[in-house]
Amino acid sequence: MADMQSVLREIDENFDVSIRKLLELISIPSISSDPSNGPDILRAAEWLAEALSSIDLVAEVIQTKGHPVVLAHSSEPVPGKRPRLLFYGHYDVQPVGELEQWTHAPFEPAVIEEDGVHRIYGRGASDSKSQLWTFIEALRAWRTVHGDFPADIVVVLEGEEECGSPSLPDFIAAHRHALECDVAFICDAEMWSPTQPAITTQLKGLVHERVTVHTPNPDVHSGHYGAVAANPIRILSAILAGLHDEKGRVAIDGFYDDVQDIPEALRQKWHALSRHPGLFDDIDLTGGVLEEGYSVLEAMWGRPTVDINGITGGNQGPGERSVLPASATARLSFRLVAGQEPEKIRQLFRTFVESRLPKGCRVDFVGQGGSSAVVLSQDSPFLAAAARGLELEWEQPAILIGTGGAIPLVQQFHEVLGAECVVIGFILAGDAIHAPDERYDTERLRRGIRSWVRIFGDIHGHTAN
Amino acid sequence: MADMQSVLREIDENFDVSIRKLLELISIPSISSDPSNGPDILRAAEWLAEALSSIDLVAEVIQTKGHPVVLAHSSEPVPGKRPRLLFYGHYDVQPVGELEQWTHAPFEPAVIEEDGVHRIYGRGASDSKSQLWTFIEALRAWRTVHGDFPADIVVVLEGEEECGSPSLPDFIAAHRHALECDVAFICDAEMWSPTQPAITTQLKGLVHERVTVHTPNPDVHSGHYGAVAANPIRILSAILAGLHDEKGRVAIDGFYDDVQDIPEALRQKWHALSRHPGLFDDIDLTGGVLEEGYSVLEAMWGRPTVDINGITGGNQGPGERSVLPASATARLSFRLVAGQEPEKIRQLFRTFVESRLPKGCRVDFVGQGGSSAVVLSQDSPFLAAAARGLELEWEQPAILIGTGGAIPLVQQFHEVLGAECVVIGFILAGDAIHAPDERYDTERLRRGIRSWVRIFGDIHGHTAN
Repeated sequence: MADMQSVLREIDENFDVSIRKLLELISIPSISSDPSNGPDILRAAEWLAEALSSIDLVAEVIQTKGHPVVLAHSSEPVPGKRPRLLFYGHYDVQPVGELEQWTHAPFEPAVIEEDGVHRIYGRGASDSKSQLWTFIEALRAWRTVHGDFPADIVVVLEGEEECGSPSLPDFIAAHRHALECDVAFICDAEMWSPTQPAITTQLKGLVHERVTVHTPNPDVHSGHYGAVAANPIRILSAILAGLHDEKGRVAIDGFYDDVQDIPEALRQKWHALSRHPGLFDDIDLTGGVLEEGYSVLEAMWGRPTVDINGITGGNQGPGERSVLPASATARLSFRLVAGQEPEKIRQLFRTFVESRLPKGCRVDFVGQGGSSAVVLSQDSPFLAAAARGLELEWEQPAILIGTGGAIPLVQQFHEVLGAECVVIGFILAGDAIHAPDERYDTERLRRGIRSWVRIFGDIHGHTAN
Repeated sequence: MADMQSVLREIDENFDVSIRKLLELISIPSISSDPSNGPDILRAAEWLAEALSSIDLVAEVIQTKGHPVVLAHSSEPVPGKRPRLLFYGHYDVQPVGELEQWTHAPFEPAVIEEDGVHRIYGRGASDSKSQLWTFIEALRAWRTVHGDFPADIVVVLEGEEECGSPSLPDFIAAHRHALECDVAFICDAEMWSPTQPAITTQLKGLVHERVTVHTPNPDVHSGHYGAVAANPIRILSAILAGLHDEKGRVAIDGFYDDVQDIPEALRQKWHALSRHPGLFDDIDLTGGVLEEGYSVLEAMWGRPTVDINGITGGNQGPGERSVLPASATARLSFRLVAGQEPEKIRQLFRTFVESRLPKGCRVDFVGQGGSSAVVLSQDSPFLAAAARGLELEWEQPAILIGTGGAIPLVQQFHEVLGAECVVIGFILAGDAIHAPDERYDTERLRRGIRSWVRIFGDIHGHTAN
């Protein structure tokens, strides 16, 4: 039986060094959705390959047609002897949005003490550099103490998760053999509460669409022609306002055609979870519109939605400019559930917009992303091991949850490779992921690392000898 | 009788110098709506004061609580002897919007030959630096030839026309005596066609409003909470989409209460003008929504409207950011007709928005501008003189028109000073005013200057001796 206490002690004693290294990683602005950002992305990838090499994994930065993947493995596996565990994280981050909204500079990460809690502030502090750091540090500590890893190891660190993982299918096809594993631990998910761990067993799919409405004219004086010429902002607003009906349902023809309804047993389970005290303490849901007939958790985890993530048109400057702009743009994201096919939803949306477009105007679309929802098995031995390990560390049972978020790789691994996936993570809603002042508290980081050690211990105990 | 031919010759012979000086003025980026732009505005004002001084007007740059006014006059009037003519123009310009949309840099003006037509390109080339240059050059040429002006002269050049003239009421109150005149020639309007002059006898009022919808949350991850939390872009789109009913009428309660309908005789007249060939050659009205029951010219000149000039919310960057933003903003402009009171319309709009705001959300407004519509007399002797002068130069009668544009000073002069106003100008719809690649052809500039000389000649002939 492996000596877990020494590994946990190693983690606690080296925790300051661990944080210092993580801050280094967060300081690299690896925003993946900006195509001009290649050099920073590469720098983050190389930093990680170096970190993995330093714990005796064989690591390389593998170019794709988009951003690179960091792929690492322990020395050649002895077939049939030990399980092969794959760990997935992503090192790319979301854009920062408006800098003025940040109290702490997004790429000058620091640990700030607030009411006795130490928090790492920075873009990627939570989503997802701390997350991938939990398993890397757990592997490092285990190897330091035991001189070997708890199993055969594969690490996959992606650089395009925040922009829809466009290169992932090709990467998986090209590295099928290297990615073979008994289980893929996907570390990019949430806890149930600050004190209770979770395992995510169903994820939504995701489709991004950018739509631009063009009128037949260039910018024109709104005094002269405002009363009579087409205004793209007015047209776009009307289209967006028509996306939902009065019951909060998406009004796009055919949108619900392939939706599998939430099984009654699951509804009951989520209904029970809904009563958890403090569940929505980090969000104010006043003013939100729920789809009629569904509770909050059902809408979040089990119903398809569309959201407008951005809109731009006409005057953006400090002063007024009395103009009818030539065009206006909105960015939308569709969150899909089991049964819905991303490309079909994209087409339904485009047809919806085109059918509402006034004569003489035209529209163009830029599509991105396109992953399906995934529903994972709830009774695999590795999920059971993870649940036991998490419970041991947090002293509360791990709850099986859904998420409205998407991790395209889970779909790919699950459906293309047929791999068993266990989705774990230590994010909380209050971490402000995708938002200004993203943060992650160091105690959660420490216990996240320790959680993996508990899980390793469990797997090792069941498979060693 | 004054020798007009010599003055016209003086204009033609010095036209190259005149253009060169005008380009100098256009190169000063006197954007008034950006509060940080004070130094450029002042530079333009001083340049103009210098130009007016050089033709022996007594010119000064007068500070206001906003941008300065250039005020100039000929040496002290001999009471009762000659009429006192006031000339108004504005030297501030609209913001440039997106620079990438400009083929020619907005503040590096140049004369470009296109198919035999020479055009000045630059922000302000048309609105309104060329316009004010027409009367300044006409005054210069007249004085050069005759050694005196054709009448007592006052020149007022404003620096805040494009941002609603907020300092104008105070300025007028403080300089009432200096502004006394027999007629105010307002040179900031359009021709009827490239070959036919016009006099504008009715102008719309203008109210700007900027509205920002705030949800109760900061930016949040749209995967997590998109299905359940308030989205300010969705809320704002719905409000904007509700601004018009299915008949193209503004759906704000009370919006039409004080509207004076277009007199039947005027409708007949505008109806006749509507048949003018080539009238809307510069604009494509496909996809525009006319208020039911009104023709294009009626809607443009005689019906109140609201337009959305800008919208901003959430992700603006090159890549996708899956976020529900904390807020979203729209900028609107209301164009008012006779009877409507700007502050009342502003309040009606604010009530409209507030009544549609979901619980838990809040809204803030930034108001700007606020001028009423003006209907000018059509039978004054100075309007008759202007019509004769214009017809002499263009060899076609001047048409009496309305405009959807606003010139706040006209309202102030007309209502506060009780001055007779004659609104003339040489802009065309194809000049791209307020838009990228604003332009003005040099031949129209030359004939605009000559038009004033004809008008001076007419007034001088009727009043001299």
